[in-house]
Amino acid sequence: MKKSIPDKETISKVAERIESYIHRTPVVECNCLNEIVSAKLYFKCENLQKAGSFKIRGATNAVFQLSNEECENGVATHSSGNHAQALALAAKRRDIKAYIVMPSNAPSVKVDAVRYYGGEITFCDPNLNSRESTLKDVVAKTGACIIHPYDDYRTIAGQATAAKELMEDTEGLDYILAPVGGGGLLSGTLLSTHYFSEKTKVIAVEPSGADDAYRSLKEGRIVPSVNPTTIADGLLTSLGERNFPIIQKYVEEIITVDDEYIKEAMDLIMSRMKLTVEPSGAVSFAGVLANWGRFKNKKVGIIISGGNYSI
Amino acid sequence: MKKSIPDKETISKVAERIESYIHRTPVVECNCLNEIVSAKLYFKCENLQKAGSFKIRGATNAVFQLSNEECENGVATHSSGNHAQALALAAKRRDIKAYIVMPSNAPSVKVDAVRYYGGEITFCDPNLNSRESTLKDVVAKTGACIIHPYDDYRTIAGQATAAKELMEDTEGLDYILAPVGGGGLLSGTLLSTHYFSEKTKVIAVEPSGADDAYRSLKEGRIVPSVNPTTIADGLLTSLGERNFPIIQKYVEEIITVDDEYIKEAMDLIMSRMKLTVEPSGAVSFAGVLANWGRFKNKKVGIIISGGNYSI
Repeated sequence: MKKSIPDKETISKVAERIESYIHRTPVVECNCLNEIVSAKLYFKCENLQKAGSFKIRGATNAVFQLSNEECENGVATHSSGNHAQALALAAKRRDIKAYIVMPSNAPSVKVDAVRYYGGEITFCDPNLNSRESTLKDVVAKTGACIIHPYDDYRTIAGQATAAKELMEDTEGLDYILAPVGGGGLLSGTLLSTHYFSEKTKVIAVEPSGADDAYRSLKEGRIVPSVNPTTIADGLLTSLGERNFPIIQKYVEEIITVDDEYIKEAMDLIMSRMKLTVEPSGAVSFAGVLANWGRFKNKKVGIIISGGNYSI
Repeated sequence: MKKSIPDKETISKVAERIESYIHRTPVVECNCLNEIVSAKLYFKCENLQKAGSFKIRGATNAVFQLSNEECENGVATHSSGNHAQALALAAKRRDIKAYIVMPSNAPSVKVDAVRYYGGEITFCDPNLNSRESTLKDVVAKTGACIIHPYDDYRTIAGQATAAKELMEDTEGLDYILAPVGGGGLLSGTLLSTHYFSEKTKVIAVEPSGADDAYRSLKEGRIVPSVNPTTIADGLLTSLGERNFPIIQKYVEEIITVDDEYIKEAMDLIMSRMKLTVEPSGAVSFAGVLANWGRFKNKKVGIIISGGNYSI
């Protein structure tokens, strides 16, 4: 595994490496939403990304960066969410196996999606201990290479390409807002912004009911996420060790939003932009709704992180 | 009001007339949905249309075809649905008043949308008698010109442009599937297909719980819609007098679908294509889902009629 923070050249190379395996997702504007918040919003639509979220960027970069020897026994991860689907799809594209450990209570729609992409699922009990020990067993048996969903520089460099594209397609952004869970997307966004558009400030948005990143930044150490409660099911996890220092160094601020704003943001994206968004994917926009006036007349990039939602 | 069925030249002229006021909506393909039904589907996304549905086409054509004298006192209609918003927006573009009669139980999201586009709302009791008498009062007081949502050749010619664009963007369609309520979209689709791609067959899809068009075609006369029950709230109305003869002459078949297929179609469009669709907008695709095998390996145009849906 790469041992240092990805530099500018690395992120540019990663963008080229994964280009043909992902969508260059559109940046969408919506007059109606601009009027509501009195700002110019530029939505980077990773809900329209392959496998339904930005996760395919990091997974693809990690999978295609492995040597033939490293990946001959496949890749593995534990995930109940978007990284599971993304890794299964990335592995399929490289024609290797993907072993996915999923909790027995994972939604059937996510289980089906992993199977659709050819992932081999091992179910475990729905707790972190069981996930980790089951993954260990799977790796011991198969020799597969573990790809972490966020605490991995290859993953971070992959996720960084979303903000890079957004800045290429939208000049002069005052802000980029990104959600924070484990910190993969956020740390990638911070690196890309630092390298490619230094004047753009990055604000992280986190659900109030899962505010471990907010507290970590305040306390200067990783505060674990304990019993988080929010509808944004993709943002429940604690910050990764590799992600936190990048966040500490470059983030402008972490703001928290209540679930009511997340619901309103989802509803506005679905009813006005006509795009399906998952709760976690609406969190960045919720950050604008909950801070009316702060972004007045500013150019604000909003990363819609994913769209894996079912009514 | 124009007194005869729009001919080929008329529809081409209408397309030019309304071009700058509407979106040329995309035709979207989705491999995943193609695999599910073993067909090649081309979705004409009128859910991404201005004011959220194809209705803006007919409303815009009607409004811009009026002479200055005819429209100096504004336009009026009764509608609880998409035509209300569309007419309000079309009137705004021509800088005239729009008087909209809405039932007192209309969803607040639709009321808000009409207000957003500047429509002046008069509420009435939620029944057809009250709607019609209230509209009569409004017209008597204002002198506004009534624009009917479907039983009007100007409206029909406007709606015809959706299928025209679909055929321009997708060659060699075997079928086009369109939903049927009052018959505005369907009769327009039939005319365009007849004029611009005669080999393409048009199949209408109707909810089983509101199957008055199916029964009308069978009995050779307009059978009124009595107490319809379906989640497809845009398709509750009876066929229009101008629409029915066009449907009789050109439609290949009217198929009916149960609400469970409409729900599944909505869910697939929202979860796989990531697009917001309203129940009525998913009815055409439900027709494919409910008739597995019939469209095997065929090129099928699917009109997604609207996306005004809120979770």
